[in-house]
Amino acid sequence: MITDNFIGNNRSSEGNKLFKTFNPVSNEMNPWEFVEATEAEVERAMVLASDAFLSYSKLDGKTKATFLRTIAKEIENLGDLLLNTYMAESGLPRGRAEGERTRTLFQLHSFADMLEEGSWVEATIDTALPLRQPVPKVDIRKCLMPIGPIVVFGSSNFPLAYSTAGGDTASALAAGCPVVVKSHPMHAGTGALVASAVIKSIELLGLPNGVFSNLNSSSIEIGKQLAIHPGVKGIGFTGSVKGGRTLYNLAAQRKEPIPVFAEMGSINPVVLFPEELKRQGDSWALTYADSMLLGVGQFCTNPGLFIAVKGKELDNFSQLLKKTLETNKAGTMLHPQIHANFTKGKEFMLQNVGVVPLVNISEGLLPQQAGQALLAVSGETFLKNPLLHHEVFGPFSIIVECNDNDQMLEVLANLEGQLTGTIIATQQELQNHMNIVQVLQQKVGRLIFNGVPTGVEVCPSMMHGGPYPASSDARFTAVGIHSVKRWVRPVSYQNWPDKLLPLAIQNDNSLSIERTVNNEKTRNSIL
Amino acid sequence: MITDNFIGNNRSSEGNKLFKTFNPVSNEMNPWEFVEATEAEVERAMVLASDAFLSYSKLDGKTKATFLRTIAKEIENLGDLLLNTYMAESGLPRGRAEGERTRTLFQLHSFADMLEEGSWVEATIDTALPLRQPVPKVDIRKCLMPIGPIVVFGSSNFPLAYSTAGGDTASALAAGCPVVVKSHPMHAGTGALVASAVIKSIELLGLPNGVFSNLNSSSIEIGKQLAIHPGVKGIGFTGSVKGGRTLYNLAAQRKEPIPVFAEMGSINPVVLFPEELKRQGDSWALTYADSMLLGVGQFCTNPGLFIAVKGKELDNFSQLLKKTLETNKAGTMLHPQIHANFTKGKEFMLQNVGVVPLVNISEGLLPQQAGQALLAVSGETFLKNPLLHHEVFGPFSIIVECNDNDQMLEVLANLEGQLTGTIIATQQELQNHMNIVQVLQQKVGRLIFNGVPTGVEVCPSMMHGGPYPASSDARFTAVGIHSVKRWVRPVSYQNWPDKLLPLAIQNDNSLSIERTVNNEKTRNSIL
Repeated sequence: MITDNFIGNNRSSEGNKLFKTFNPVSNEMNPWEFVEATEAEVERAMVLASDAFLSYSKLDGKTKATFLRTIAKEIENLGDLLLNTYMAESGLPRGRAEGERTRTLFQLHSFADMLEEGSWVEATIDTALPLRQPVPKVDIRKCLMPIGPIVVFGSSNFPLAYSTAGGDTASALAAGCPVVVKSHPMHAGTGALVASAVIKSIELLGLPNGVFSNLNSSSIEIGKQLAIHPGVKGIGFTGSVKGGRTLYNLAAQRKEPIPVFAEMGSINPVVLFPEELKRQGDSWALTYADSMLLGVGQFCTNPGLFIAVKGKELDNFSQLLKKTLETNKAGTMLHPQIHANFTKGKEFMLQNVGVVPLVNISEGLLPQQAGQALLAVSGETFLKNPLLHHEVFGPFSIIVECNDNDQMLEVLANLEGQLTGTIIATQQELQNHMNIVQVLQQKVGRLIFNGVPTGVEVCPSMMHGGPYPASSDARFTAVGIHSVKRWVRPVSYQNWPDKLLPLAIQNDNSLSIERTVNNEKTRNSIL
Repeated sequence: MITDNFIGNNRSSEGNKLFKTFNPVSNEMNPWEFVEATEAEVERAMVLASDAFLSYSKLDGKTKATFLRTIAKEIENLGDLLLNTYMAESGLPRGRAEGERTRTLFQLHSFADMLEEGSWVEATIDTALPLRQPVPKVDIRKCLMPIGPIVVFGSSNFPLAYSTAGGDTASALAAGCPVVVKSHPMHAGTGALVASAVIKSIELLGLPNGVFSNLNSSSIEIGKQLAIHPGVKGIGFTGSVKGGRTLYNLAAQRKEPIPVFAEMGSINPVVLFPEELKRQGDSWALTYADSMLLGVGQFCTNPGLFIAVKGKELDNFSQLLKKTLETNKAGTMLHPQIHANFTKGKEFMLQNVGVVPLVNISEGLLPQQAGQALLAVSGETFLKNPLLHHEVFGPFSIIVECNDNDQMLEVLANLEGQLTGTIIATQQELQNHMNIVQVLQQKVGRLIFNGVPTGVEVCPSMMHGGPYPASSDARFTAVGIHSVKRWVRPVSYQNWPDKLLPLAIQNDNSLSIERTVNNEKTRNSIL
């Protein structure tokens, strides 16, 4: 096992605070032990990252693409050691480990494809008009450039795909930004292994030392030190509203504020319209149960709120959903802390006035198993009590029984920002209630018709993010190649000698990328 | 004259706090009088804006384009009344008034062109793959949507182009966001006239009441009320670091933080390399003086810092620049407050140790005239004293006399973020010092070769913004059509019925826009 920090390419364990990861299935600590990164190690990682930025930021797209593909290859080469460590630190089954590894590699290759194609830099050129009246127009050209070293906070629920070499890291490296990872303490071993694959890739390709560092830490101090470090130019985070908001506040209070993209909380409302409820309510109850229980409810797109009009059909739906949830086996959560938060959150929700518990599995559970829960409340109760609008991370849902479509609209209008909003309806019902769609659209990053919110496709058209508190800046996605936009800024070159311009905006379009030249999109060179 | 607030389409003057604008040329108050907007008026404007957003956000691009073109037409129709008011409230000459009006109309038409062309929404489509293994791929489509009502704070130095219907307003209206303007108190009459043109356009076209409001205010309370109002979803600001940072902090402390684009301070360093200094130093001295004095130094891209290697050639340059500045007539500043800040800032700079005053016009000045100033310091002195790195808004520059190119690089490396960085050099010198270019590039939004920073071309390739404190988020520009990106966010539609999708992402590409379909850029419809 690898348990050291990576300060650039060098392994380092200078501290004296130790911690271990936990196996939630066997309910015991894993044997390997990590040394919390020290302030001095963090400082060294940042100095290396700032130095590395000078050369890494200038690398051509093909070299960066090779880097990302090499990382993918080296992660694959970790083989069963990685999968076994992942399983031991998360309690997740091998199939999930393999699936998440596939997704992680796919993400790296997606960004490599983007870099090889090259048009992502949004090259924009306006050529000179020396004879323009009343004043001549100078030649101006613009393209996207990396903003500087980025700190990535690994997420608890995606030890591979949104952690060490996950989406945030891959997008920042693609942009041309060095990355310092604050590894998630719950899967520090998985993280260290992946970090070793990144470091090996750097060494193989002779990339600058400092393009990547991986810091082990079980406390919040290292994260705070990073968030306020002047060398850090951006932060990527996936986790709780509390954690994300803390980082956002620290970054906003800096002398030089920096962008924080935090993907945080969401209850992902699902609205089922009466006609479709009547038509296929049973089938949707089974589908909803599957989505709710997937990964023991530990997905940011887990459906936590179900909204429908009360009546016999909804009662049937609720009963079938209840039965399905009751007959499903409880799943093991990722970590005692998540498990404790889930239990606490569920119990808190049950204590609210007007809440009817339909399901609350609480017996026969192993120590880290989550007892799924389903609650029902009236529309009035829900509207009156904003505490019911908050996320309980895990297999937990509330059914809101509305008087009519108008109340459904009111419920939606009173929600906070969400990653997703789902409408299950006949096409006619959807068409007849575009006002509800519009209200929902304003709350979410992704609208889903006749589906469930779990299952986040990695593709350019995916928006993963949404109005606060779903994410800290709804103008960016955390998933798909467009997530690179979080780490770049446009830079203009005015009257610049052609041969000294970045390749993307020279006259000769040697990269064969799509560019906007004098307001026309073209792949032609400028003659 | 119009002196009322516009609360949506209705004129309103409910308050009892009055204020006037000032004519800096005649050095007396203008006769017309404004009533400070009340809290209740602000609240009504915001309620109207939030209501109007529901329908305005859904308008097609052609209708929004017509709106912007109508505003341009109505501003033009204001004729001499607008120009005379502008001159009376700014002290600027008619030529500048006309020029800025032309620029304002051009900006409105640029966004109209963008809307009519339509591709700016970044339509991205990934079609379904029902047979994909291990799980089918659903259909997902994404395009940019407006974020909600935007508050625009008019700038002092561009009463037309960056105020009431200037770049921020035009970009927000183009995005589909209603706009509430906090009019600049120094040119509230100009603002009210322009506001009347916007309101007339809304009425002519039957657009929703509340798409636009204009609030008069001479204090900071209205601005604060707006910044923390839950209905506001974004802020555009042009002005001082102090003002911009205050808004940024208020927005970041909200329960739901919102994006603030503040374009703030910049000293726009100009580096002149030895060979070019020898070759054409005299000519550059005259050009630099022109840029420094343009608009009485009241441009955000005014050159405030000149960096070169000391010696006979630099002495000659400094002497010619000094002579030129001394023979130029002093100009009238926009307002007593700006004039007082300029005088205070200049005097402060003169008191610093090691500062050599080359020019400091202080006699024979009319009350609001700025006495241009030129200071010289050694590289060491500049590096040791960060107070010398700050902006003095007005005709003010510091010459930093460096020992060598290495010290020039050090000076640049120690600067804060800037809107622009200029290098004047032979092409060979530029090529030989790409390390200096790189350090400068990391500090700025726009690099200029053999030119001056004043003169901000309105075109798609213009980046107007830069690392803090040049602007609050270097990832966006305030000038050019790409400034619309500040006010939009991507929204995905998954498995959505084709005919109920936004037009831009339906199968039939009826808008004939460029779209990314399954990773290929195309204008074809999907069959």
